[in-house]
Amino acid sequence: MSIKNAFYAQSGGVTAVINASACGVIETARANSDKIGTVYAGHNGIIGALREELIDTSLESKEDIAALRHTPSGAFGSCRYKLKNFEENKREYERLIEVFQAHNIGYFFYNGGGDSQDTAYKVSQLSEKMGYPITCIGVPKTVDNDLPFTDNCPGFGSVAKYVAISTQEAAMDIQSMCESSTKVFILEVMGRHAGWIAAAGGLAGKDASEAPHIILFPEVAFDREKFLARVDDSVKKYGYCVVVASEGAQYEDGRFVADAGQKDAFGHTQLGGVAPALANMVKQALGYKYHWAVADYLQRAARHIASATDVDQAYAMGKAAVEFALEGRNAVMPIIVREPGEHYKWTIGEAPLSQVANQEKKMPIHYITDDGFGITEECRRYLEPLIRGEDYPPYEHNGLPKYVKLKNTLAEKKLSTSFDI
Amino acid sequence: MSIKNAFYAQSGGVTAVINASACGVIETARANSDKIGTVYAGHNGIIGALREELIDTSLESKEDIAALRHTPSGAFGSCRYKLKNFEENKREYERLIEVFQAHNIGYFFYNGGGDSQDTAYKVSQLSEKMGYPITCIGVPKTVDNDLPFTDNCPGFGSVAKYVAISTQEAAMDIQSMCESSTKVFILEVMGRHAGWIAAAGGLAGKDASEAPHIILFPEVAFDREKFLARVDDSVKKYGYCVVVASEGAQYEDGRFVADAGQKDAFGHTQLGGVAPALANMVKQALGYKYHWAVADYLQRAARHIASATDVDQAYAMGKAAVEFALEGRNAVMPIIVREPGEHYKWTIGEAPLSQVANQEKKMPIHYITDDGFGITEECRRYLEPLIRGEDYPPYEHNGLPKYVKLKNTLAEKKLSTSFDI
Repeated sequence: MSIKNAFYAQSGGVTAVINASACGVIETARANSDKIGTVYAGHNGIIGALREELIDTSLESKEDIAALRHTPSGAFGSCRYKLKNFEENKREYERLIEVFQAHNIGYFFYNGGGDSQDTAYKVSQLSEKMGYPITCIGVPKTVDNDLPFTDNCPGFGSVAKYVAISTQEAAMDIQSMCESSTKVFILEVMGRHAGWIAAAGGLAGKDASEAPHIILFPEVAFDREKFLARVDDSVKKYGYCVVVASEGAQYEDGRFVADAGQKDAFGHTQLGGVAPALANMVKQALGYKYHWAVADYLQRAARHIASATDVDQAYAMGKAAVEFALEGRNAVMPIIVREPGEHYKWTIGEAPLSQVANQEKKMPIHYITDDGFGITEECRRYLEPLIRGEDYPPYEHNGLPKYVKLKNTLAEKKLSTSFDI
Repeated sequence: MSIKNAFYAQSGGVTAVINASACGVIETARANSDKIGTVYAGHNGIIGALREELIDTSLESKEDIAALRHTPSGAFGSCRYKLKNFEENKREYERLIEVFQAHNIGYFFYNGGGDSQDTAYKVSQLSEKMGYPITCIGVPKTVDNDLPFTDNCPGFGSVAKYVAISTQEAAMDIQSMCESSTKVFILEVMGRHAGWIAAAGGLAGKDASEAPHIILFPEVAFDREKFLARVDDSVKKYGYCVVVASEGAQYEDGRFVADAGQKDAFGHTQLGGVAPALANMVKQALGYKYHWAVADYLQRAARHIASATDVDQAYAMGKAAVEFALEGRNAVMPIIVREPGEHYKWTIGEAPLSQVANQEKKMPIHYITDDGFGITEECRRYLEPLIRGEDYPPYEHNGLPKYVKLKNTLAEKKLSTSFDI
């Protein structure tokens, strides 16, 4: 039996640690070169497979692959592209088989969130539906922490650490100025459907008396009056108020708070931002001096302050994916299992791709305090271990992190046909 | 001669390293306890002096004072409060003398930017104008880097490092996604009058071919058409475009770009944000998928990624202030002097408070490229040393930095009168 090559790709929004998973996949494949041939990385995710743009990772040095562990973003390019259903676009699947066959690919590793695991699941059906033998393993990744089965998702711990520290630091800033300056600060964080990232802001304070005084979750209907009353109460009690708002905060009727109906001078609808919308409410109703920040991509790219736990887990998921494949498992995704006990300990389990795809794990309601504005002790116990430890990248003399830029040399094309996305 | 006590206070917007200056002041005073008595810190800056709210720093442990070096924000509270002219409000000056006299204060250290050095200068005139002998030394601080005489300001290097790294990390994120997702990313940074912080974003790339592709300075009139053309050009050439925009970016006529004339659903004027205003232009004119971030306080509070050079200099300024006082100098401020030569080296000089106050140092025009969108090699040579080195705070087991919270015990009041601010 000839040794099969592997295809690895990154999909969906990138994170501070998705390259650590890539590092785990490639290093583990290299360590098993008697069983796995070349690892080809898709240039821009599955798009690279469809276009036959395969990056030959065997041309990268051992040092550069190792440096992926501390390099944020997607080193091979990621994509937002979802395969259609088999029946809807059979041509896509035929193309994948052509490309995989041409490059002797027998292993498929797909690194992403819910949508991406849907793609991985569809590819895993190629064997059955089209008679092409391929071992297909998902590698979990998402800052949103919304994949089912796994205790948490690689990528989340580092965003959580960034948001917790940023909230802590900004809160100290406001507190020291509130006597004669800014009294209300609003930090907008990611999480359109689930409040995990906003919840992480809650780690900045020990309880409701410490900042953040208010967290807004997509899981709790936004009530303008209740929100303003709490802001006012915090300012009166503590001298200031810090709010961490999920971008997905919404009213009872499902309308996003960010969608404040703004128009510019020409009458064009303006793009939201839940932070400026909230700031405006505070200004109109209470008149307090405010500031707001929108962390946006900074939060998910912040490898400079990645969680060591997260980096370890991201690497371990990549490594486990290759080991699963070598053990003959198929259509599964390694997951993180939290072991019972007082001290945090995790092991690796597995989940079937057929059940992972397209599911969303929201915050359990008992992780949110009764007033809807904070996190419970149980939530805290869940979140804390995930942000533990610092895993600093090396730095250049010029004061910037030494992130690796791979050569990303494409393998020679073997097919004469091209494919339009 | 009885030993005189000292008054130290923090003023204006706080920074990641203003407490390092406080640490320098207090440790140096303690090391000279034969010449300087207790260091009283103003609770909320000069307001603390007026209200006779003096924090007795002698009640803080050696360890806690040492921990100020790695703790962001203003440990004693800061303020936005400017003393009026002597002639306009003589009562304020009389009150200061009463409080200083009551607590045997002979040294005055004021840690702040341009406005604060104006206050320091006014206090230094107390000797002459009101016959109260006091040695008055300014301690420079401002993230805006706009104080005259000093080569750079403590506080700036750490913001610069944060902005350079955040730009680098976010740019890598966009680059990896641009094939099928976001193509334009805009990061808004501080700097209402001077573009120093925005310039620091330029350190993320080696030249115009690397992100950030566009920097918007307050010093260069904003030209909508030219801006949009450059965005389009970058997307076409590199696949994506990263913009670092100073909050102070403005049109030829002085109107802020952030002031986009937005109205909400009720017709209320909306608060700007240059980033969302620019994003909207891009959307309307070019239709590219965009994202934007507003760093706001996160940038100046980010002690977790402070520049080691900046921390050293902030401490050194506090130390030098006390040494200057002990050498009998008065009405001066220690400054950072860049020594000539290929390798960065700095020493400590001094500037007279009478000339420091109320001056603003803008970016020299030869630090900005001819097209107005980038920084020159000379600017790069100026900025780079300021972000060199990492000075990480210690961390708690829970994954958060171990920042110190002082006891901040107020000294017993000796005056029967209060003072309304």
